[in-house]
Amino acid sequence: LCPMDEAISKKINQDFSSLLPAAMKNTVLHCWSVSSRGRLASCPEGTTVTSCSCGSGCGSWDVREDTMCHCQCGSIDWTAARCCTLRVGS
Amino acid sequence: LCPMDEAISKKINQDFSSLLPAAMKNTVLHCWSVSSRGRLASCPEGTTVTSCSCGSGCGSWDVREDTMCHCQCGSIDWTAARCCTLRVGS
Amino acid sequence: LCPMDEAISKKINQDFSSLLPAAMKNTVLHCWSVSSRGRLASCPEGTTVTSCSCGSGCGSWDVREDTMCHCQCGSIDWTAARCCTLRVGS
Repeated sequence: LCPMDEAISKKINQDFSSLLPAAMKNTVLHCWSVSSRGRLASCPEGTTVTSCSCGSGCGSWDVREDTMCHCQCGSIDWTAARCCTLRVGS
Repeated sequence: LCPMDEAISKKINQDFSSLLPAAMKNTVLHCWSVSSRGRLASCPEGTTVTSCSCGSGCGSWDVREDTMCHCQCGSIDWTAARCCTLRVGS
Repeated sequence: LCPMDEAISKKINQDFSSLLPAAMKNTVLHCWSVSSRGRLASCPEGTTVTSCSCGSGCGSWDVREDTMCHCQCGSIDWTAARCCTLRVGS
């Protein structure tokens, strides 16, 4: 219907197809650990908990309110949250 | 060779460079836990296991068939899989 | 000021808004495990550690130098790192 519009759409499509993969190469998952004394450890806002590690060799944990690691064993001296976020490169 | 094409390409490039970072700010890693009784817990299709948590304080686990947490210790009463996926914002 | 430029910009914006979500559907978080004997296990370059699993039921671990799982309990026979990366689909 509108040949110019269509031509430009096609070009946008083509350029996008090569620009996106190139840009995504600079987008990485970035993770780090936040440790606290006791049985709770929290990730900063804007990050996600992917795992928790507990003192006393304990492997039983749950995540509370999306951002807080809670270690469940009897006597826990420390708790660490593994916090991750997407980082868009330049 | 084709001045118009080049001008449009350049414009697409420029606009893409500012549109992508803005759009990626709305793309987040979203994770949640799926718990089951016994020594196995599965993540739903389209998600990825980033970690497992086991009952009885057990920290020995492996991931089977990409989506299933398997806790290895002797007597496991529950297993939780940490399931993650990218969520593209609006 | 430049009606043509503005019209093309608008078109780029519109097309980008539909192209990106479609392309992001093919971008997934991909994770797998790397196991080693002993108390250390490393993820390959370009990936991120989201969690560690330890032999002997141990749930106490930390991540060294961003890519290496270190299990802390007394006698550890094996260590596994959960390694993740973004994979841009075609």
